[in-house]
Amino acid sequence: MSRLVMKFGGTSVGDVDRIARVARIVAAERKPGQGLAVVVSAMSGETDRLVGLARGAAGEGGNGARMSAADFNDEYDVIVSAGEQVTTGLLAIALRRIGIPARSWQNWQIPFRTDAAHSKARVSDIPDEDIGRSIDAGVVAVVPGFQGITDDNRITTLGRGGSDTSAVALAAALRAERCDIYTDVDGVYTTDPRIVAKAQRLEKISYEEMLELASAGAKVLQTRSVELAFAKRVPVRVLSSFLEPGTPNPGTLVCPEDEIVEKQVVSGVAYSRDEAKVTLLGVEDHPGVAAEIFSKLADANINVDMIVQSEARQPERQNILFTCPDRDASRAAEAIEEIRSKIGVEEVHIRRDVAKVSVIGIGMRSQVGVARTMFSALAQKGINIEAIATSEIKISVLIDAVYTELAVRALHTAYGLDAV
Amino acid sequence: MSRLVMKFGGTSVGDVDRIARVARIVAAERKPGQGLAVVVSAMSGETDRLVGLARGAAGEGGNGARMSAADFNDEYDVIVSAGEQVTTGLLAIALRRIGIPARSWQNWQIPFRTDAAHSKARVSDIPDEDIGRSIDAGVVAVVPGFQGITDDNRITTLGRGGSDTSAVALAAALRAERCDIYTDVDGVYTTDPRIVAKAQRLEKISYEEMLELASAGAKVLQTRSVELAFAKRVPVRVLSSFLEPGTPNPGTLVCPEDEIVEKQVVSGVAYSRDEAKVTLLGVEDHPGVAAEIFSKLADANINVDMIVQSEARQPERQNILFTCPDRDASRAAEAIEEIRSKIGVEEVHIRRDVAKVSVIGIGMRSQVGVARTMFSALAQKGINIEAIATSEIKISVLIDAVYTELAVRALHTAYGLDAV
Repeated sequence: MSRLVMKFGGTSVGDVDRIARVARIVAAERKPGQGLAVVVSAMSGETDRLVGLARGAAGEGGNGARMSAADFNDEYDVIVSAGEQVTTGLLAIALRRIGIPARSWQNWQIPFRTDAAHSKARVSDIPDEDIGRSIDAGVVAVVPGFQGITDDNRITTLGRGGSDTSAVALAAALRAERCDIYTDVDGVYTTDPRIVAKAQRLEKISYEEMLELASAGAKVLQTRSVELAFAKRVPVRVLSSFLEPGTPNPGTLVCPEDEIVEKQVVSGVAYSRDEAKVTLLGVEDHPGVAAEIFSKLADANINVDMIVQSEARQPERQNILFTCPDRDASRAAEAIEEIRSKIGVEEVHIRRDVAKVSVIGIGMRSQVGVARTMFSALAQKGINIEAIATSEIKISVLIDAVYTELAVRALHTAYGLDAV
Repeated sequence: MSRLVMKFGGTSVGDVDRIARVARIVAAERKPGQGLAVVVSAMSGETDRLVGLARGAAGEGGNGARMSAADFNDEYDVIVSAGEQVTTGLLAIALRRIGIPARSWQNWQIPFRTDAAHSKARVSDIPDEDIGRSIDAGVVAVVPGFQGITDDNRITTLGRGGSDTSAVALAAALRAERCDIYTDVDGVYTTDPRIVAKAQRLEKISYEEMLELASAGAKVLQTRSVELAFAKRVPVRVLSSFLEPGTPNPGTLVCPEDEIVEKQVVSGVAYSRDEAKVTLLGVEDHPGVAAEIFSKLADANINVDMIVQSEARQPERQNILFTCPDRDASRAAEAIEEIRSKIGVEEVHIRRDVAKVSVIGIGMRSQVGVARTMFSALAQKGINIEAIATSEIKISVLIDAVYTELAVRALHTAYGLDAV
């Protein structure tokens, strides 16, 4: 008996006609000896509607002070989790309508346990006895994504995009042979096809590369779900939910590195325009200064990405540059202002019209000259590099945002990724 | 420690502003030594929306055959029960926002058990330990009405209007001193105030009278909820959810007969225009004929109300008249047609423009002349009576529907119910 988990997002279940198509996709995947579980999101727009109601009840945007998270988040989870519950019932009915035995499984029925961090819970335990027995008996299980229950039997949600994580966690619990994530693209591409017409769908990509791609700005899969798949060794396939059921739909397999025979030096080029650069000039140069700065930013819940430190011209001074999401830039500046005298910063500059462009590939590890190719390609187009950060399998550069497309196209060509 | 259950229907929680008002009503009711549980419906319109989605998924009104109830009803319950879940979270947030400790309790958290008759389940068992302890500690419990779970942990709904029943069942389980049903009217009236301007709000009414009023067409409370309150001796108060919180709002108390000191001969006048009269002329007069007819109608799920049998002119023939809801009239005729030759009916007449007018009062039991007053009052207005049915505390007559208002006003005056 093998098992497969399939996951469909909000646009794939956006109305009853689309839900009927999802039912046909599930039917086409059904075969003897294979148990199926299907994780679904709320119908598109529904979560936003429910979030709006919850905020309205809390008086946000209205006449009251903001409620504390402790007073709000647990019941917020009760409200927004109703959206996926509706989809599970609808898909179960749509499956039965075409003759497929199916039933919905709410999280408390499984039970799908998480920790008690309401609105951003993490999966803790999923017993597979009941649901496993049911799917092995040929009944398709339809499970709401994005949510769970605590050990105290309160409802939690995993945070936005948590449905991918639900699917991977369920696949791990069920020891499924694969988790198929149906989405509005037909796989993972070498870069954004909207920018580079010659972008190619990848047959396979390693967990590590997928993680770097996600953190570098590619939005195909949630980072958390890839981390979980990596940790639990669950093969994940990304494929399109908009093809006619039954037509070829290979997608991209995200899998362990050792299953990828021909390792590309660079597998993909990613970019993110949601970046701001904060430069601190003339920071005092003594131990603990960097810790001071980045603790302060962490306390302010600012997600710092690149960090570059260099010596300043003056003795015993240094310059520190970091990037953060553009929406956090002014809050980052305020946080720095509060500790400015303490750390002795001379000047703070913020630049918001920057973009990060990254090249990713597990082949980098064993290959020299990868960075040189990148810098040369950018130099040839006259693009100035404002900062560089590297990991074992990724090189990222910060550039002026107006050159984003030009840089992505140049790098895609330079690393031989263009389709012929 | 005393306990109180409050219940708010769909229009009372129709948007976040109304939910905020409900929170203020609950706050005004809160006092030391009293635990509060609040049962809520889905926001008005929400259940209809969810029912529409469920029917859409089943392909109803579309290109498919109707699904069987067994394939549809359990998942239908999953879908529509999401509506009340949302309201529980919203009200819990609205209560906390004004400083009242509160939490939602989903049915599986209580657990609120029902039988497995999906979409029309009956309450079976509600353990009060956990929820009782919580409300006794001063935390307002917000509970979704209209739904429960089976012993197998599947979601059920109690059928439309089941929220009143949920509230009464919860009040019984919690041994609450009262169940307050907040609605869009401020109590039970001697008759419909839209017809009789001098109608008066009743301070108290007995369970028996309330049951007869509900079955006679008054729509204040669901019959099932009154039956349950009667059986469990739960005092129920009907009051307005549209008054400013804190203003006097006595409503009407539905209570045991022995708590009503001054028993009115007639407490109320009710009417129903949703009636059809079916007359079977020249039915063979031998044992088993009536059983044949009404078994057939019961099998066709037709709710027969009044039944009158009389001798026909021909020997060994009789006439049988019955009433049923107007929407069932043609199905009733079809059912009769199927057994017509078997029971030897000579003629079948259907009249759909009839109304039932009823007077109800526990004082009737010990009072003579109640029927005479009714018939005289109608005769004085020249209204012809087409059928009469009586119970211990009710007299109903069937009349031409055009005289409905005239009859109701005449009876309200004749029994001395007009406000002075």
